[in-house]
Formats: sequence, C-alpha cells, structure tokens
Amino acid sequence: LISLAAGFTDPDTLPLAEARDLLSEVLASPRVGRSALQYGPTEGLPALRRLTGERLLAQDSAAAGASPARELYQPERVLITHGSQQLLYLVTECLCDPGDIVLVEDPTYFVYLGILQSHGVRCRGVSMETDGLDLRRLESRLAALKRRGELGRVRLLYLVSYYQNPTGVTTHFAKKTAVLDLLRYYGRAAGHTIFLLEDAAYRELRFGGPDVPSALAVGPHAQRVIYAGTYSKPFATGVRVGFGLLPDLVRRAVERVKGNHDFGTASLLQHLLARALATGAYDRHLVELRRRYAGKAEWMAQALRRHFPPEVCWREPRGGLYIWAALPRSLPSGPDSLLLERALAADVLYVPGRLCYAPDPTRRAPNQEMRLSFGNAGEQDIRTGIRRLGEVIRTLLTRVRRGIRPAGRPH
Amino acid sequence: LISLAAGFTDPDTLPLAEARDLLSEVLASPRVGRSALQYGPTEGLPALRRLTGERLLAQDSAAAGASPARELYQPERVLITHGSQQLLYLVTECLCDPGDIVLVEDPTYFVYLGILQSHGVRCRGVSMETDGLDLRRLESRLAALKRRGELGRVRLLYLVSYYQNPTGVTTHFAKKTAVLDLLRYYGRAAGHTIFLLEDAAYRELRFGGPDVPSALAVGPHAQRVIYAGTYSKPFATGVRVGFGLLPDLVRRAVERVKGNHDFGTASLLQHLLARALATGAYDRHLVELRRRYAGKAEWMAQALRRHFPPEVCWREPRGGLYIWAALPRSLPSGPDSLLLERALAADVLYVPGRLCYAPDPTRRAPNQEMRLSFGNAGEQDIRTGIRRLGEVIRTLLTRVRRGIRPAGRPH
Repeated sequence: LISLAAGFTDPDTLPLAEARDLLSEVLASPRVGRSALQYGPTEGLPALRRLTGERLLAQDSAAAGASPARELYQPERVLITHGSQQLLYLVTECLCDPGDIVLVEDPTYFVYLGILQSHGVRCRGVSMETDGLDLRRLESRLAALKRRGELGRVRLLYLVSYYQNPTGVTTHFAKKTAVLDLLRYYGRAAGHTIFLLEDAAYRELRFGGPDVPSALAVGPHAQRVIYAGTYSKPFATGVRVGFGLLPDLVRRAVERVKGNHDFGTASLLQHLLARALATGAYDRHLVELRRRYAGKAEWMAQALRRHFPPEVCWREPRGGLYIWAALPRSLPSGPDSLLLERALAADVLYVPGRLCYAPDPTRRAPNQEMRLSFGNAGEQDIRTGIRRLGEVIRTLLTRVRRGIRPAGRPH
Repeated sequence: LISLAAGFTDPDTLPLAEARDLLSEVLASPRVGRSALQYGPTEGLPALRRLTGERLLAQDSAAAGASPARELYQPERVLITHGSQQLLYLVTECLCDPGDIVLVEDPTYFVYLGILQSHGVRCRGVSMETDGLDLRRLESRLAALKRRGELGRVRLLYLVSYYQNPTGVTTHFAKKTAVLDLLRYYGRAAGHTIFLLEDAAYRELRFGGPDVPSALAVGPHAQRVIYAGTYSKPFATGVRVGFGLLPDLVRRAVERVKGNHDFGTASLLQHLLARALATGAYDRHLVELRRRYAGKAEWMAQALRRHFPPEVCWREPRGGLYIWAALPRSLPSGPDSLLLERALAADVLYVPGRLCYAPDPTRRAPNQEMRLSFGNAGEQDIRTGIRRLGEVIRTLLTRVRRGIRPAGRPH
C-alpha cells in the first residue's frame, strides 16, 4: 500500500548525526547535562523560551519589513509544550466549556476537531478562499450567532495560517488584521474576548514565496492572539517540542493545567532544541529540509499534471506537506465512496476531504476532495501513487459521463 | 534557603554518561535512529511496552514468590506516557465526570489532588495505618456512601502503594487483596466497576526490606486494577517516561485521549529508556541510586534522632524520598502557622502536611505534620536543615508548655 495519507515527515530528512552530536554536547557539561536530566520549570527551559521569542520576533520583523512590538515576544509569554498539539489541547481545555462554540476553517486540521469534540465543543465552519478565510462568511457567521444570542458561547477562532493542513492555503496578513478586527467587534458584543488561535505548525516548512508575519505582528490585538508553533515537524517529530505565545491570563491558566498534565516538557528534549537553535544546527537543517520538500512537492505536482484529468483542481504547494485536490462534484471521495474503495484496491491511500470538515449541522460539507501528502512517501511512491489514483479517477469519471452514478453520497 | 520540600531527585545520581552513551548508540543505527526521531504509535514503542510488561512480571513474580497470571503483563495492556503523572491525568479524564467521587489516602500525593480538583471531582479521604489504608475506615466510607445513595458516583480508589508520598508507607499485599475485595463488593452494589488506581511511582526507589507484589498479582481482580509506574524518577526526571498497565476498555479510552493530548510520548525518550532497560544500564543505575538514597535517608534519620524532640513521631524510611513527621497536636505546621514562619526565618522549608490532605468536608484533617524530603538536598543541607527545624520546634514546644498558644489553627 502506498500511503499518501500520513502526515509523517520525510524519514530521509531526520537529523540523526546532528541530534547525536547535540545531545552529546548537552550531556558532556555536568551543569547543562544535569539540567537536561532533571525536572525543569513547568513553563519551559528559560533559554528555550528566550530563543523562541527572539526567533519569532526576527521572523515577524523580516516578514513584515518592520519591527513589531517587542514586548509581545518576551520569554515570559512563551510556554513550551510536548508538541504544539499539546498546546492546542491545553488552550481548548482552559478556554472552552461543553456547549461552547469554536469557529474553524472549512476544511481544517482534523485532529483539532477531535480535541474540540472531546471537550463537547460545537464547531462552526467558515469557508476559505485561496488566501485564507472568506471574510464575508466569517462576518455573516458571527452576525448570525449574535442574532441567535449565541455569541456568548463563542470562545475562539482556530486558524491554521501557514500552508494549511489540509488545503495548503496560507492566510494573507491583511486577512489576519481583518479577522482580528472582526473578533474585537464581536467580542465586545459578546462581553468577553474571542481569541484567535493561530496554528503555525507548518510555517517553517516554507519552500516557495515569502514568509508572512504572524497575527502577533498585527499589534493592537495582541491580547486576543494565541500563537502555536512547533519544532517537532521541522526538526524531528520524535522530539516532541512545541510552544505557544499567549496573553498573560491565558498563559497562566494553561501553565497551571500543564502542571497537572505532566509537570512540564521533558528537559532533555528542550535542551536538545535549545542547543540546535543556539548553534545554528536547526537553521542549517531547515535549509536541507526545504530543499527536500520542494523537490518532493514538485514530483507530486509533475505526476498530478501528467496523470490527473483536467477536471481535478489543485494548486502547486509553496510549503507544508499537502496538496488538496478537488474533484468534480459528481465524484464523491468520502470514506464510503467508490473512489476510495477503488483507490484501496489499487493499493493507494489518501485522506478523504470530508474528514477535514467540522461536524457543523448548519451547513453542508463538500464530499469530493482529497488530501495528498508528499511528506512521508519517497519519490517512486509519490509518482506511482498519483498515477494509480489518476487512473482510478479517470475510470470513474468516464462512468459518470456515461451516466453511471458512482456509489457514495454526493454530500 | 534549604529546601526539604522539593520532590526533585538527587542531582548527583543523574546518569549523564550513561544517557550520553545510550543516546549515541540509539542514533548511530539509521534504522533505530530514524524510529527515535519520527512519530511512533500513540500507545508507545512496541519494544518498550514489551520490556515494561516483562519487567513488571519479573518484579511481581519475585516479590510474590509465585508466578502471577502472565496475560496481565502482555505488551498490549501497556501504555507509555510522558511521565506517570500524565497517566494519572488521562485516567482521571477518562473515568471521572464533574461531581464524581474518588477515594484517596489521608494524606496523599497532593498533585493528584490538583488533578481531581481540575476535573471537578469530589475527594473522600481514608485514613492510613503503618501498612496502608485502614480497611475498616475504607469499608465504613463505602458503606456510608452506599447509604447516602452516592455509590454510583464513586469511580476509583487512588493508592500510592510504595513508599507513599508523603508518608513513606508501603501498602501490604494482603491489604491490596482486601481492598480489591471491597471494591468488587461495592462495585456490584454501585452497578459499575470501581477501579483501583495503584500509583507505584516510588517502587523502584527501594533500599530496605523486600519488594511487595503489585495489585495486578492479586489475580482475579485484574479488570479493576490500573497500575501506574515510571522510569523518570529512578532514571532521570528530565526524561519523562511513565507507563500504565490497564484493563482493555480503559486502555483504549485512555489511548484515544492521549492521541488528542500529544499523539504519543516522544520516541527519542522511549528509545533511550528501552535501550537502558535492554542493555542493563537501567538496573546498574538503580543499584547506585538505591545506595545513594539509603545513605541520604540515614543522614536525615541521624539528624532527626539528634535534633528533633522525642514528642515528634517519624519512622525510618525503607524507600522513596520522604520522611513524614507528626508533631504534637498543640503545634500546628500548616501554611499559616508560626512554625512555618519560624522555619522560613531560619531558612529552611518543609511541605506542611495539611497540603497533602484532600479537600474533604466530611472529616477534619490534621494540621501538625510535615513532609521532609531527602531527595534533592545534599548531606550538609539535610543535616543543617533538620538541625534548624529541630531548634524551631523545640523553641515552640517550650512556649506551648508554658501555656503560650502558637499562632495558626489547630485544624
């Protein structure tokens, strides 16, 4: 089976030698080594919090071509977690009660939908454009919630803002500003802060086009921005180190819950990352990584151009791990579709797009999309997998044209 | 300030050279190294799950002098977590709803009380004897809950069964059997399983006396035993790897929630521990560790014999990190006590015993005990700290004898 479904990173990019050297250096010094093997502060290793704040400030400064407010990047605002996934969980646990509402992109990162569901939170999807959320849809959503008296239950808007999982879309900076303006306006009407949870998990997996400043750089809205980032995906997913930059009140609440969860992120992992950042090993690795993913994305794009019929819409990725392909509406791709069945019979797996849509009873979710990952598979598997999928799609489209309706619900 | 409060382990015992060699070996092999730097299964690394089950089976067999049911130690029953703290959290999240009741030892591990509180769970304390829970009190507690129709809300009994934090008490095996019999009886009356959550965090920090089999070895009760263990405390607290052995239904639920929390424990940490266990490095380290803690416990015991007045009751530890000292009732030790104030003025800190009692409005908790840790402090600090505390206690006891009541509530 060729899996184009897994969100795993490329095994060939894993920094074995670098990690070995860095860990050896960390443990060679009795002072640093002891700190790496002992409990640390729940909020994270001071050096890593500082390096994280500085790094993000530098990224946002470079992307914005101007210097954002330095105080938003202070180490005190940084919390280190076991992957950014843990930060998403903690934030949701702290901010949401059962029955509360969270706004998500349509489609969005499906694992976060699981987190929301486990907290009994209701999801409301907002459809997307090629540069991020459809602002008019967001406004009409919020206005409708206000009309129905449900604005008081809206806690946050979750945005995967860079090379989104699953669509690959990056949110334009102007949209972040506009989104925050809307959240401020409706937050006032709600009588509480509606937060923007910006999930920047794929930001550093950028291989085409310029960087975009984070929502922190919008400035006057800092008290409603929660920024989630990760070192795991770019460096090594087996080293679970993520981070958040949070408004003070939220940070303190999240830190308390983090203490209950696990007392803080494993010191050894934090020291490894701090050293990788401080020595430049992390950035050198990033150069290699981007070159590699750019190549893999191009193999997939070549194969798609060659093997997928022109009715299928997709765009060349500029970062991340995914290509999102939209089939004609007549060709469902969902878990119970003939397409998935045929793809599996041809030994190739994709993520049905349907799974990336929140369970939102107030709108119909599309059912003819697929998420294709070039992260984990090698060149041959990418080419063969796309060829096989293309064959299955062409065969089924021919049936559709002949008037034979494929099995599976259109929605 | 000399802190005899922190539950940190001894910095001199941290295995710097061993960790360095083991990590270097793990990352030297491309196959193993890649697995260490990549995502792994949510439930944990197969090799570590197997080693964990085998290790526990060997421990229980040796302690029981007989072979417990092997199927209870199968790798499928093992879940690896970011420290055993995370397991406690996940189990509580899965099994308890707000308003539910959890039975705890009086006193108990205060961080677990925080977990219970954060889930809105009500605590009911059961007082202890020198070999574990007072069974008559446990039975009368359960009987009272039954009479009041609250048995349906009782989810689990939490037992820190080896060198308990904070008292140092180890639960006798016969008591585990009796406790499980009671839980079965009252579980039937409740109409659901009441679980025994056995927290064995200190089991491997044993330096005197024989090992005791776990509650798993009781056998017929396996479906109500959840066993939580850890490699962090014995090996290195900066390497957060704990584990649970769980009944199938609970394991599956906990695994699902663990997936939402963080996708699984960092592979690098799991490989480090798996290699430490497989090569014998872990067990060699344990020999050193036990020798070291035995020595530190003896320093503290010597100092206590010398500097504490005979009115203070305490017992020589046979494992763990703590000595529990009970003062006369006339001398409160709580957070607002004159004793704590004077101790801080003398630059020495202990954990007020009061903090280790659950917020249980149905009984009065004692307020004249202190938890003294010999884990983190060095020899000189242990001796000086205890001498200073002894002086403060003697001074205040003299005042009490003269009829001057120390500040602070007796309860």
